[in-house]
Amino acid sequence: MTLQLPPIPAIDDDALAAQLQNALDNKTKPVGALGRLETLASRLGRILGTVAPILEVPQMLICAGDHGLATQGVSAYPSDVTWQMVENFLAGGAAVSVLARQHGLNLTVVDCGVRHDFAPRKGLLIRKIALGTADASTAPAMSLAQCEQALANGMALVRDLPGNALLLGEMGIGNTSAAAMLLARISGHDIDVCTGPGTGLDAAGRARKSEVLRGVLERHSDATSPLAVLAAFGGFEIATLVGAVLQAAQERRVIVLDGFIASAAVLVAQTLRPHVVQRCVATHASAEPGHRLMLKFLGLEPLVELDLRLGEGSGAALIWPLLESACRILREMASFESAGVSKK
Amino acid sequence: MTLQLPPIPAIDDDALAAQLQNALDNKTKPVGALGRLETLASRLGRILGTVAPILEVPQMLICAGDHGLATQGVSAYPSDVTWQMVENFLAGGAAVSVLARQHGLNLTVVDCGVRHDFAPRKGLLIRKIALGTADASTAPAMSLAQCEQALANGMALVRDLPGNALLLGEMGIGNTSAAAMLLARISGHDIDVCTGPGTGLDAAGRARKSEVLRGVLERHSDATSPLAVLAAFGGFEIATLVGAVLQAAQERRVIVLDGFIASAAVLVAQTLRPHVVQRCVATHASAEPGHRLMLKFLGLEPLVELDLRLGEGSGAALIWPLLESACRILREMASFESAGVSKK
Repeated sequence: MTLQLPPIPAIDDDALAAQLQNALDNKTKPVGALGRLETLASRLGRILGTVAPILEVPQMLICAGDHGLATQGVSAYPSDVTWQMVENFLAGGAAVSVLARQHGLNLTVVDCGVRHDFAPRKGLLIRKIALGTADASTAPAMSLAQCEQALANGMALVRDLPGNALLLGEMGIGNTSAAAMLLARISGHDIDVCTGPGTGLDAAGRARKSEVLRGVLERHSDATSPLAVLAAFGGFEIATLVGAVLQAAQERRVIVLDGFIASAAVLVAQTLRPHVVQRCVATHASAEPGHRLMLKFLGLEPLVELDLRLGEGSGAALIWPLLESACRILREMASFESAGVSKK
Repeated sequence: MTLQLPPIPAIDDDALAAQLQNALDNKTKPVGALGRLETLASRLGRILGTVAPILEVPQMLICAGDHGLATQGVSAYPSDVTWQMVENFLAGGAAVSVLARQHGLNLTVVDCGVRHDFAPRKGLLIRKIALGTADASTAPAMSLAQCEQALANGMALVRDLPGNALLLGEMGIGNTSAAAMLLARISGHDIDVCTGPGTGLDAAGRARKSEVLRGVLERHSDATSPLAVLAAFGGFEIATLVGAVLQAAQERRVIVLDGFIASAAVLVAQTLRPHVVQRCVATHASAEPGHRLMLKFLGLEPLVELDLRLGEGSGAALIWPLLESACRILREMASFESAGVSKK
């Protein structure tokens, strides 16, 4: 391949990890009483390399693209919903728009390959590879060159964004199919346990989807390297996110996962560079059943389970204040000594 | 009894409930895709009586008191930690202080019966019944008159607070013992399953605590009416919170639960007035094992499980932004019609 992927070293500063644990243990509370908020605080401190982490100018990056496979009836909604929802993100009416506004998250929407021509405007970046991917049931969703271009786009996008935290968002009718196939091929799980109802298929619809995806996987049985797998199954929005994740990991930003699709981008990035996941926070386990398998494969523990299954980055935005809280606990809570509180 | 408790009618506006469901179903997302955030939005709408709920001037009320039973070795920490933590709340260094500041929650600390004389200052209200409760292993923790005074104090406190949401906080070394006994007596569960490690007892310490509490329950086997039970087991901070909960329920404020102790106040209030729980939101299931039993008994489903076991109101404050998000989803998200997005 011609594209140069960034090196991503391990985070292995044991001294800092011990300092973080010590700081948390000396806060005015019983040891461990803030439960998983403490684990999160420690993780954020390690990613940002400090015992007093500050999350700066957090960026919600929503990558959108269409899927040729959507013509095979794998989604409950028509492909036009992709561009319509992009308009909704930009108009401020989507769930992720509302939640990003609530928490002061800067929102960038990227057309990575939507089957629609958008009028240019503030907050929308055009990084279109094509008007949707090819139908993966008949050909690879994209060429390797297209795949590399999408990765390069994602890397450049993050390079140009300020801040030290990247929240992953996406939109693309048909993209739970792509994510399911990426999971199946990379993890070795059978496609049926990776396939869920997506935006709302009934049981029969889900079963049909699973059989379609099984055929697509067979069609591309030769695709085994991470980029070949990504090119075979798509989509452009996932490939762009893979690039964004790699760049964010290389810059040691906090990478904030959302649901099944955003996590699929992390899965591919992690397969390419095995320390990516150390920079990641899994905000929630989605109701889409494959998501839990994916997080487990990545070794990530989701913070909450709220039966979300919307994507967009909505779960990442919803849970964002907990990351902020974790940092504030480290920065602002008194110690037993400073507050004059008796220990056990 | 001489104290007049407020009437608390059922919330049974089926038309509003249907309007809320309809509003949520028409937002630009698959039906139900925001999972438990939608259930929460619907609940908040019903409590506040509108399809466009706004949470106004949220109040974190931290009630503090000492427990005579603490001399029986039921806690890992000395009673002095109660007043020391009150000072920490006021100085802004406690977890709940940090989280309340993060989310703009107004914080009021009430001395309901701490074994300490505080210098008066902003943010601290003195509603002291006595310098700690009596040792419940030898006498009722408080007299019925004291219990009624604490309830009246709590009612008056909330009457004077602005806003339409009350977050419940507490501090009192020994108060997981009181909460465990309230749960055991009111629910009928054996005391052993209601008794947890509290601030950090080891297994042997927890077992000893359970046996002490079994004795105290036997000592007050005649206490069966809600107020007699509350008076027998304490404490002043819980009784004051019971009054606060009743007043908030009567005014149809949103009542935001925290952990085991705050929920114990709701348990007593619910036993007195059976529609209280309709106004409540359970933010989290604590690591203190009795909390889960308590929420189940109340018929409340916690939003998250983060292994918190600090109390103070810290969990309520941590999860507060999710309540805000739920309201914003209803108020700010576009509908399919308004955004021009295709349906299934």
